[in-house]
Amino acid sequence: MKADLIIAHAYVMTMEGKGVGMIENGAVAVKGDTILDVGTTEEILAGYQADRVIEAKGKLVMPGFIDAHIHSGISIYRGMAQDMSHWMQKGLWPFKKNTTQEESLAGSLVTIIEGIKAGTTTFCDYDYGMNRIVQHYAKVGARARVAETVNELPNDIGKNPVGELYPFDRGLGEQRLQDNIRLFEEWHGQENGRITVLFGPQGPDMMSTELLLEVKALAEKYDTRIHMHVAQGDREINQMIKRYGKRSIPYLDELGYLDSRLMAVHLTEATVEEAQLVARRGASMIYCAGSIGIIDGLVPPVMDFLEAGGQAALGSDQAPGNNCNNMFNEMKFAAILNKVKRSDPRVFPAWLSLRLATIESAKAIGLAHEIGSLKKGKKADLLLINLQDPSLSPVYTDPIRNIVPNLVYSAKGSEVETVLVDGKIIMEDRKLLTVDEKEAIRQAQEAAVQISRRSRDDIVAAHSDVYQMMEDGYL
Amino acid sequence: MKADLIIAHAYVMTMEGKGVGMIENGAVAVKGDTILDVGTTEEILAGYQADRVIEAKGKLVMPGFIDAHIHSGISIYRGMAQDMSHWMQKGLWPFKKNTTQEESLAGSLVTIIEGIKAGTTTFCDYDYGMNRIVQHYAKVGARARVAETVNELPNDIGKNPVGELYPFDRGLGEQRLQDNIRLFEEWHGQENGRITVLFGPQGPDMMSTELLLEVKALAEKYDTRIHMHVAQGDREINQMIKRYGKRSIPYLDELGYLDSRLMAVHLTEATVEEAQLVARRGASMIYCAGSIGIIDGLVPPVMDFLEAGGQAALGSDQAPGNNCNNMFNEMKFAAILNKVKRSDPRVFPAWLSLRLATIESAKAIGLAHEIGSLKKGKKADLLLINLQDPSLSPVYTDPIRNIVPNLVYSAKGSEVETVLVDGKIIMEDRKLLTVDEKEAIRQAQEAAVQISRRSRDDIVAAHSDVYQMMEDGYL
Repeated sequence: MKADLIIAHAYVMTMEGKGVGMIENGAVAVKGDTILDVGTTEEILAGYQADRVIEAKGKLVMPGFIDAHIHSGISIYRGMAQDMSHWMQKGLWPFKKNTTQEESLAGSLVTIIEGIKAGTTTFCDYDYGMNRIVQHYAKVGARARVAETVNELPNDIGKNPVGELYPFDRGLGEQRLQDNIRLFEEWHGQENGRITVLFGPQGPDMMSTELLLEVKALAEKYDTRIHMHVAQGDREINQMIKRYGKRSIPYLDELGYLDSRLMAVHLTEATVEEAQLVARRGASMIYCAGSIGIIDGLVPPVMDFLEAGGQAALGSDQAPGNNCNNMFNEMKFAAILNKVKRSDPRVFPAWLSLRLATIESAKAIGLAHEIGSLKKGKKADLLLINLQDPSLSPVYTDPIRNIVPNLVYSAKGSEVETVLVDGKIIMEDRKLLTVDEKEAIRQAQEAAVQISRRSRDDIVAAHSDVYQMMEDGYL
Repeated sequence: MKADLIIAHAYVMTMEGKGVGMIENGAVAVKGDTILDVGTTEEILAGYQADRVIEAKGKLVMPGFIDAHIHSGISIYRGMAQDMSHWMQKGLWPFKKNTTQEESLAGSLVTIIEGIKAGTTTFCDYDYGMNRIVQHYAKVGARARVAETVNELPNDIGKNPVGELYPFDRGLGEQRLQDNIRLFEEWHGQENGRITVLFGPQGPDMMSTELLLEVKALAEKYDTRIHMHVAQGDREINQMIKRYGKRSIPYLDELGYLDSRLMAVHLTEATVEEAQLVARRGASMIYCAGSIGIIDGLVPPVMDFLEAGGQAALGSDQAPGNNCNNMFNEMKFAAILNKVKRSDPRVFPAWLSLRLATIESAKAIGLAHEIGSLKKGKKADLLLINLQDPSLSPVYTDPIRNIVPNLVYSAKGSEVETVLVDGKIIMEDRKLLTVDEKEAIRQAQEAAVQISRRSRDDIVAAHSDVYQMMEDGYL
């Protein structure tokens, strides 16, 4: 049978079964956008011919990573808001209010490039102005599952005194919801199905019950999922108690929100019992180890969620305070932070991190029928990783394989050589084929200069801990 | 005045002063092995001429990283012993007893290459057979501060039942001490002073009081430092209590061991008070965030040590359970693990991680007169880092600089382009000039195949948690 491409003589990590599904001398045959077959090199070469055969001896083939939560629209502020208190108000806000959409888009493209170069093939991007950001994904050829941020907060919410109840603007909320609906109608299923659209309410504290229920009804009508922050910080919990006399999760449960349509992001402030409730109700949990560790100094109850049978995934969140969108970083942090939380080195083994960045992530975001593992009939989203890098050498196979622990604890992301999405090579030998990386970086740099100039006074006025470090000569 | 090399138009991070000592349009002039001058590009170009001028616009120049604790001799087992209990006995030992010195050396070279490619210029290597390992450092051109592992444990100590007191072999201890003395006499000050030698007692639990005191007297006689594990695990504390009725740190204090000659590694099991005592006595603390997080699930009391005024440094430890020797990894883990330990995002800011990997590390290991910062008269050990990588883009400078947080939280190590040690370029545009990287990896791979074959039965017999994962199909 004729394939377009065969990758042979590789370590193939299918992510099928309960572990990583390793085939030691494996091969993958691809036709069009689809995985035609996966097996031993012998099986695949006996069953298929292809114009192009990639010899992958000493390389690893695995599914592309799925970043289940990212805000690429704020990546232009990479590294501006960490090691500080009041991340949102003092870190992000002074920049955000002084940024044009074009500037935000310039940052978004750089972080998408960063992700692809570290093996991310699917991005669950959740931000304002998604109708423009989504065009990046169309162009670079990555898979994206996008949502518009929907809330009822006025545009000058940054001025709201810390601790006071947010004012809601029903009209603005409706407008943003319409943007999300329009995004769905224009983009859902586009680019050969690479682009799909979710609903993106920003959090239970940031909109009225009416709007939340409207979103829920729409998600059902359009048969899609809801990507939402839940219990993301003490700020949120305080708002909920003040407004409704209830914490986020009991409130959402009463509304019937905790079901398999919901991707609940963070759960930072969820109690163990609340995390267990979310798991039992069938909503998925997106765990952002790096960003929550860095901007909050906390480890969300992901282990309790998993132990209650919940479906979890990893996400890289945002570059102002993570400060990267690299799933290797997330896998590493997820494992070590949970070991330390429980004072037990056996907690969160490497294979679990890998699953939560691939097949479990696919389940959590509702795309397991298409991606997350290398399986006949699934989309050809896959990576070639160089195991001859010093960070991954030497390779042991018997009686213990060390590929998985080294991928999680040692690899940096730069070992990813080649990236296929939807059967197309979008990066080869670390060179992006669909976008000019240097030009993207140049544009982001230009944007940063403008933002810097425009936001100077607001940054000085906010006087964050980071600004103080700068004043004191530490940076 | 004539220089050999000028690097101009760079962001120069000198690490002088209390922060990172940034010069935004900076330059460095190098002559022979020495930094001739550091200043603004204008100053340097006005004062010096050189045959070679590296134009470093958009790049960062900074001191090379100092890895204050590494066991390169066990790197050949990279990724074989994590996510498990009984790391030493079940993880390491079955391999170690089946490995030849040549095989260990093959692994050592790969990890030194890994380190250099991630910007490490000085390695405090502490292992058996250092008289051979040290030749790698001589050849590749890195700076090394080495010690032979000295203890009184019999060669078959792995057989000792867990929990029972270690038997001591005075003769073996004396032999190993002689190896350390010979190492000192042959290598201290060699290679233009790039190689220096310390004493390396393995821990207070692994040798008699007599041998410990002999080491101390020798360190004074040779006027060098002592590189030693202290309170590295509950195993050690149990041995100390059983043997002496005292915990490690009070015991060492009574021996007069806690002074500025001592580099105390780990302090994992030190109480807050013990960490404070070590700090007050003037011994330095080497903190290995990654390895202790991964193999023990713990965060040592480094913050308490620092708050007591102690001199600390970061180290990458060992590749079987870290699983890398990359100082970017250590900086990142050090910051995030301590934030989480104290539930405060302001704890362990990025600039502190950077200092503990450069200038503070130089002080902690006793080489601050030569390395750790870019300063007139110090050795020219420095890095050129590409800030145009997506992980470090865009660069902001005013009113807040984001270079430091992005280096610590986002960079992977692969952004390091060029490495100078002792004024010589040993890596340029990511190509090592002094050693054949591919051949080193090939040899390590060959060694791994042999070790794997030879240790198979012992690994099966040890039946570690990792072996069980393999049996269960998770790896």
